[in-house]
Amino acid sequence: MKVAVLGVGLIGGSIGLAARGRAEAEVCGYDPDERVRATALELGAIDTQSPDIVGAVAGADVVFAAAPVGALAETVRFALQSAGPDCVVSDVGSTKRTLAEAAADERFVGGHPLAGAETAGVEHAREDLFEGATWYLTPAKGSTAGVLYERLHRLLSRFGARPSAIDAETHDRLMANVSHLPHVLANLLVAQATSLPVLGDGGLEQQGRLPAVGPSFRDATRVAGANTAIWTDIYMSNRDAVIESIDELDRRLHEVRGWLTTGDAAAVSVWNEHARVTREALLDAGLLGAAGGESVLELRASVPNRPGVIAEIALALGGAGVNILDMVLSPSQDNSQGVVALWIAGEQLTRRAERLIADLGFPVVQA
Amino acid sequence: MKVAVLGVGLIGGSIGLAARGRAEAEVCGYDPDERVRATALELGAIDTQSPDIVGAVAGADVVFAAAPVGALAETVRFALQSAGPDCVVSDVGSTKRTLAEAAADERFVGGHPLAGAETAGVEHAREDLFEGATWYLTPAKGSTAGVLYERLHRLLSRFGARPSAIDAETHDRLMANVSHLPHVLANLLVAQATSLPVLGDGGLEQQGRLPAVGPSFRDATRVAGANTAIWTDIYMSNRDAVIESIDELDRRLHEVRGWLTTGDAAAVSVWNEHARVTREALLDAGLLGAAGGESVLELRASVPNRPGVIAEIALALGGAGVNILDMVLSPSQDNSQGVVALWIAGEQLTRRAERLIADLGFPVVQA
Repeated sequence: MKVAVLGVGLIGGSIGLAARGRAEAEVCGYDPDERVRATALELGAIDTQSPDIVGAVAGADVVFAAAPVGALAETVRFALQSAGPDCVVSDVGSTKRTLAEAAADERFVGGHPLAGAETAGVEHAREDLFEGATWYLTPAKGSTAGVLYERLHRLLSRFGARPSAIDAETHDRLMANVSHLPHVLANLLVAQATSLPVLGDGGLEQQGRLPAVGPSFRDATRVAGANTAIWTDIYMSNRDAVIESIDELDRRLHEVRGWLTTGDAAAVSVWNEHARVTREALLDAGLLGAAGGESVLELRASVPNRPGVIAEIALALGGAGVNILDMVLSPSQDNSQGVVALWIAGEQLTRRAERLIADLGFPVVQA
Repeated sequence: MKVAVLGVGLIGGSIGLAARGRAEAEVCGYDPDERVRATALELGAIDTQSPDIVGAVAGADVVFAAAPVGALAETVRFALQSAGPDCVVSDVGSTKRTLAEAAADERFVGGHPLAGAETAGVEHAREDLFEGATWYLTPAKGSTAGVLYERLHRLLSRFGARPSAIDAETHDRLMANVSHLPHVLANLLVAQATSLPVLGDGGLEQQGRLPAVGPSFRDATRVAGANTAIWTDIYMSNRDAVIESIDELDRRLHEVRGWLTTGDAAAVSVWNEHARVTREALLDAGLLGAAGGESVLELRASVPNRPGVIAEIALALGGAGVNILDMVLSPSQDNSQGVVALWIAGEQLTRRAERLIADLGFPVVQA
């Protein structure tokens, strides 16, 4: 099988490594940056390189367009022009609807791997980047190119990914709600908090910063100001769905505002309780951690914040065969102590973890 | 000095332990629950107990009302009725304005320690709970009871806390923006994401859960559905300020919506860049981590998600004297691998950490 990768960054490079290492494919890479192509060759992410799209795509069975979202439509169009009738062209962009419109061709199947946005550049490419990751595929409705879709699906499975079909519009609405809107809100919370009027004496303007706040603000704003070039592209390419999700949030926000205005504590209580139950269901389903059918439980331990404490806990649990699915250490302001939250799969392992942490002398409870 | 603690849970119990252990005070505790009083005595959180507020407050120099927010106003009123003219009465509630109105008395100084909401009950009380924690104090404007304020301030300093004066209204507006609004949004995001219409085949309704999503959703919803009783009280007691912060968010949300509607990528870009710069300033100021004047830097390493990996990293860093201020491990869906984000104080230690992690064989970059 011959695979072409157009754009050899973190994702494109990892596709190359996986295609070569796990699917015995021959990979030709194109990138507008000559040095990137050379590095990709050197790292074994591609077998051969081409200075243009036509050359990379020639004779390919599968093409992956892995350019930034803003340049994707053009890259896919070029690829479809250059590719043969029996070649499937896909991409790895974070939004899918506008691209599906721009590339209305039986040979095109949009894609979006949920992996690897944290580090950029081919030097961080890894053969196992997609291991266990959902890889959304958005075949056009009524597409007859079943053979091409199946070839792509099979290849992604060999990468270790979990291909999952979804229509482009639903994909974009889902992402608008679970990713793009949270990013918008994180930006807004940061801006809003830091524009608060002066606080008593020595307020914001003098300090140039917020006074002490709790960990919820940190969690809520962790993704604020994500890479501007990438995110401007994402927001713009998914604007319809983001606007829709903003309007829906606005509607819900006004509902809450109404209860606060009339002092309807019962409604606020029901609403909060519903969120609690829903969040627990999401935890159970493995969404907010990762679980193989078992519930994910949360432990909270109070610990002194010194080098070695996390190691001490992690070692004790690791040694007893308890895997920590997720952990968050929230230090106190002066960094002298903190609370470490740990997510563990299953009742039995959680009880074991609780005992082990208590034995280390740290107060621990299930949250 | 004689201290009375009204409500001996986690916070009240910790006040008792700190007052006895660090300020050589004699502590009398009241709690409506007889068993809680007995446990507090047993754990040494109080010297004596009283079955009513009058008895606990008799002869006290400082009184702390540590009841739930909903019962605070009444507790404070009783305390002021029972306390002598030279006694300062304070509280530990999360909102301050309504209480200040309910307890308009020269002897009352509202308080709010930013500590310890994670675990409840006197059995988790600790003498060092307030070590390094900001403890907001909201003395009434124009108060002449300087001696009482100073006594309270000095006592809190002996607890290891950092007393910080702020007027009640500013406090509540600050908390509305950095804590209460993020909680509201977390609830809304959970409800909105899980009410998405059916997704293709095997969508939400069949699965009863969301399909795969990225870590930003988990971060943004970590505080969704926090303790309903406590949070209904908080929302209701701070409703004016929460409504104000909702309206401000609404205004900002509509601004973003406008840019999306007109396709104004430049405005979106400027807005996102502003959030990035602001978030970095907050990190530098130690708000989103903890720093003693030095910048907090963020490293991101790709790691296999197996027991021992976190220990391996933490041990390597701890052994080299690098303290991890905060860490978040985001596992892939199948839990086979993940990205660990680490926050380190200062350029030098961050470089050391980066080298140590790379030496362990994990790809690592500065975020």
